[in-house]
Amino acid sequence: MSKNTYVLVHGAWHTGAELEATADQLRARGHTVHCPTLAGNRPEDDRATTGLEDAAQSLAAFLDQHGLEQVRLVGHSYGGMVISRVADLRPQRLARLVYVNAFVPQPGECLNDLVPPHYTALFDNIAAETGGGVMLPFPIWREAFINDADLALATEAFGKLNTHPYKTFQDPITLSQPMAACPLPKSYVNCRMDAALPHSLGWHPRLSERLGLFRHVECSGSHEVWFTDPAALAAAIEQAGRD
Amino acid sequence: MSKNTYVLVHGAWHTGAELEATADQLRARGHTVHCPTLAGNRPEDDRATTGLEDAAQSLAAFLDQHGLEQVRLVGHSYGGMVISRVADLRPQRLARLVYVNAFVPQPGECLNDLVPPHYTALFDNIAAETGGGVMLPFPIWREAFINDADLALATEAFGKLNTHPYKTFQDPITLSQPMAACPLPKSYVNCRMDAALPHSLGWHPRLSERLGLFRHVECSGSHEVWFTDPAALAAAIEQAGRD
Amino acid sequence: MSKNTYVLVHGAWHTGAELEATADQLRARGHTVHCPTLAGNRPEDDRATTGLEDAAQSLAAFLDQHGLEQVRLVGHSYGGMVISRVADLRPQRLARLVYVNAFVPQPGECLNDLVPPHYTALFDNIAAETGGGVMLPFPIWREAFINDADLALATEAFGKLNTHPYKTFQDPITLSQPMAACPLPKSYVNCRMDAALPHSLGWHPRLSERLGLFRHVECSGSHEVWFTDPAALAAAIEQAGRD
Repeated sequence: MSKNTYVLVHGAWHTGAELEATADQLRARGHTVHCPTLAGNRPEDDRATTGLEDAAQSLAAFLDQHGLEQVRLVGHSYGGMVISRVADLRPQRLARLVYVNAFVPQPGECLNDLVPPHYTALFDNIAAETGGGVMLPFPIWREAFINDADLALATEAFGKLNTHPYKTFQDPITLSQPMAACPLPKSYVNCRMDAALPHSLGWHPRLSERLGLFRHVECSGSHEVWFTDPAALAAAIEQAGRD
Repeated sequence: MSKNTYVLVHGAWHTGAELEATADQLRARGHTVHCPTLAGNRPEDDRATTGLEDAAQSLAAFLDQHGLEQVRLVGHSYGGMVISRVADLRPQRLARLVYVNAFVPQPGECLNDLVPPHYTALFDNIAAETGGGVMLPFPIWREAFINDADLALATEAFGKLNTHPYKTFQDPITLSQPMAACPLPKSYVNCRMDAALPHSLGWHPRLSERLGLFRHVECSGSHEVWFTDPAALAAAIEQAGRD
Repeated sequence: MSKNTYVLVHGAWHTGAELEATADQLRARGHTVHCPTLAGNRPEDDRATTGLEDAAQSLAAFLDQHGLEQVRLVGHSYGGMVISRVADLRPQRLARLVYVNAFVPQPGECLNDLVPPHYTALFDNIAAETGGGVMLPFPIWREAFINDADLALATEAFGKLNTHPYKTFQDPITLSQPMAACPLPKSYVNCRMDAALPHSLGWHPRLSERLGLFRHVECSGSHEVWFTDPAALAAAIEQAGRD
């Protein structure tokens, strides 16, 4: 098995730190793994003004600063928006895109275009009160995001989340072409108990098939399998990321 | 892991006795488990006249008689009709509703509203001949309900079934509100090889998403995993039933 | 467990040889297993003129020549077209039909009626150039057919494929009745990572439910689980094929 370079890109409310357990599993298999934190989710970032392009530019800059090549760029959830944009910004640094229950936008779409209306309504209300940063309510986290955890782990993991800049859900993405036309190899990891999107309006195949030809990989676990089963997720990411 | 009280509510053609193997697995994990038999499926019950409300009232009475509190009320298949009604009758005794490939009715629906027309036609004909009690034909049981068993187990388990009062499939349910509006926590266990409903008109997400916010849990096995893999089912029920 | 006779029928681009690893697993469980190569996929066959009826007649002749009775006839992919026709030609030799992510045609349909238009367009173009034989492009094979293999196995397995007679994809099938009306017992094995058909236009339940009453069995792995996990596939085929 060849040794590859992976960059794991977190979802909303997360930082790279929460992906380190999975990264360690990949490192134990011989790979080089980076877990950057996107602009917007760092302590110092302004939750009211940071947008999707800021997040994508911060990831592109990270790839440049570390001089990374032949990267398997892995995006989780909201991270799918970000890696889709970076595929336009830095294609020469990438070997493959890997979406892990992640959003796959069409040109000009925003994340909010891809979720059920009741989610958008919920976060519109929260953002109106806070002025820009949104937190996921604990009952939704516990029941729909980390449904495979016990309450202790669900609570502990929730304590690691950070307020997310809502503008990144509202900003239309700039893409030079639909992702199906992007010539990079692409994979989609689907976790079977992931109910963060309702299965009637789910991740796969609704969003995955926007990739055109792609490699489908299944994994056990919920949307937050990064916390509940890093070993299973690392095995799935390796299956998805290898040549 | 906290120790909880579970009440397992059987489906059509079953009694509580067929759930005891799974109950024993939960008891071995420290939980208290009851497996009552609903009115309509006891030897002495009149298959022609016992209806859905009788079944629900018998379950409510069982909870009262045993003074049960903080119950995780688990309904299988037809049992989903019954626990939905009992959530209206005895909400103060319940901590969570757990549906295991179970029907989730809207107010005023009957079970027959939720199954394919060919099932309704089949049972209409059987009930017309018997005057009210219906038995599941063995080929449907063997191929679509207990598809993960060998023939010996399929035959042995079939021998334990009892004639079911068809009126319970025809009676519209009385609910004070849609289940999505019921404030109790809710879970849905979906067995991946459950083909008792055709997957094009399946249990999940078609019926599960009527619960509103709910916890999705996957399990291996068929509709009759109570016979074929009680240990896997007990683990899934515990994942679904814990706080 | 009773010992049965299995005939495994390969898909397009394959011969019986590629099924031998799975056959050996079934033989180790005590079964008798044959893996014939259909007319059209043998070295000497004319890829321009061999059609679906030729393939079906060659399988019927194989059953006759070996005097096989009580056969569990297992078709993979394109092999589903062939076993459906043989169920008409030699019903008296068969105990059960088992489809493994296989096509289930209605009377008068051809295989091309059941696949996405972009597949048909692709192979129309290839066949126009070659005069009748079509090969699957390697990127589709690697990403969508054998997505659970590493690159070495994907490449090695690709080297075993043979050019397929495209006429067998274009010939309408002759069936005396829809498969749902065929009185033979039927099973459908669905591999969860099989993405050879896009999941939005997938094998199961879209094609499986054309069988009427059938036994659903799940298996791990991709469309080419014959190469990637013969033991898991053999276990699933036995679950599907037993009485």
